[in-house]
Amino acid sequence: MSTLIKITSKDNANIKEILSLQKSSKYRREQGLFVLEGLRLCLDAVENNFTPEKVFISSSAKEKYQCIIDDFSLCKEVYEVADSLFSKFSDTVNPQGILCIFKMPDVSVDNISTKGKYIALENIQDPSNLGAISRTAEAFGIDGIIITKGSCDPYSSKSLRASMGALLRLPVYETDDLFYLFNEKNLTSYASVVSGNVKSINEFSFKEGCVAIIGNEANGICSESLEKSDFLFTIPMSGKAESLNAAVAASIIIWEMTRC
Amino acid sequence: MSTLIKITSKDNANIKEILSLQKSSKYRREQGLFVLEGLRLCLDAVENNFTPEKVFISSSAKEKYQCIIDDFSLCKEVYEVADSLFSKFSDTVNPQGILCIFKMPDVSVDNISTKGKYIALENIQDPSNLGAISRTAEAFGIDGIIITKGSCDPYSSKSLRASMGALLRLPVYETDDLFYLFNEKNLTSYASVVSGNVKSINEFSFKEGCVAIIGNEANGICSESLEKSDFLFTIPMSGKAESLNAAVAASIIIWEMTRC
Repeated sequence: MSTLIKITSKDNANIKEILSLQKSSKYRREQGLFVLEGLRLCLDAVENNFTPEKVFISSSAKEKYQCIIDDFSLCKEVYEVADSLFSKFSDTVNPQGILCIFKMPDVSVDNISTKGKYIALENIQDPSNLGAISRTAEAFGIDGIIITKGSCDPYSSKSLRASMGALLRLPVYETDDLFYLFNEKNLTSYASVVSGNVKSINEFSFKEGCVAIIGNEANGICSESLEKSDFLFTIPMSGKAESLNAAVAASIIIWEMTRC
Repeated sequence: MSTLIKITSKDNANIKEILSLQKSSKYRREQGLFVLEGLRLCLDAVENNFTPEKVFISSSAKEKYQCIIDDFSLCKEVYEVADSLFSKFSDTVNPQGILCIFKMPDVSVDNISTKGKYIALENIQDPSNLGAISRTAEAFGIDGIIITKGSCDPYSSKSLRASMGALLRLPVYETDDLFYLFNEKNLTSYASVVSGNVKSINEFSFKEGCVAIIGNEANGICSESLEKSDFLFTIPMSGKAESLNAAVAASIIIWEMTRC
């Protein structure tokens, strides 16, 4: 392991950096960096070829996880942080005592395949939903997630945690203009609506080169996008609930898109 | 509206009662009572024929929601609680200032229909999962939820909130012995397993008089139950994730059970 540099003051520039990255999605984007906390999430990232820029280990974690921490030895900057200081920036009540700063991956829409199957999330706001949808998308072999600018941040700790690391493995493309992208990639677009005179999802077979759009939690898909979509569909419900939770709707759509 | 009785002391017996009901699932069961907070959840309950035993309104909510609070006028015991005191037992950061104590419904397994479709949750632990599954079950017209004793409490505020009130509308049966109940009601049982040499869910048509069992979040369905089940199935996944979130797995199972 690299030599550990001790941090003892809350005024240390690195501690301030962590706090800024945790707090501000804008700052994360500007710096191209994000923060992960917890052994499992950090190891997940390392296994998926993310190299930490900086590693922060609490003094007690240094003892406890010695053998595992060696996995982070690729990183040149490893800091030891006093337990009491670590808890100042930890996201959790009982911190495991490990936090890493990673570089955001370079995801270019050029890599979107004309034969792939994608989920597009229009202005999704809840990081737990984004995380859960990514986890399901990965489980069923969806090729990537496309989010509109203005959606919640896939690199927030809430999103990453809810995704069980799926957001580290699945490409997340960001765009200003969904339909420009769909046209360019020749993707057939399907928009889900809660009700109306549209066909049931059962009536479609989602062939390769397609994208299903899921709307904002409160407002659904905007009217402009509904007009531009190739097909509209609904998930028929026989029961009484007004609408499905966004993550549940997405799971049924993903299941139908990828079923054999 | 009934005359409001003012509560000004945190030592008031009603305040203690609320705190006990919020804290302890055991106490809720003993008393046969549960607590709901927030205008929408409380109104949901009233619309679904729950009559509050007691209503607690903060002083500022009394002004703000005057017109709506009349809906609770059926209740003979309406209390006005000082704002500062209300926030002491409120579950939320910005309380709306309304909380009701309701009687638990009398749900008898005798009402389980031999022709119904049910979801059985074996030892489910996360109230958010229980809530989300109930919401989906209601949306697709599942006839009821059967939970084993030892599962999380459907009348906790977390479960109720996550269910968007579905747990107030859908019968939740509790049993010590799932298979005794299934036999008695002649329900065909389907158990979901993560992997193994079992058929895909796609190969079954879930006819009336059936129940799908979903296991504990960490351990799945216990081996004894797997042996006793009529059929085992799996949700085939082409992707990389190890397993699905319990609520997502449930949503696909419910979708397949109820699709036309």
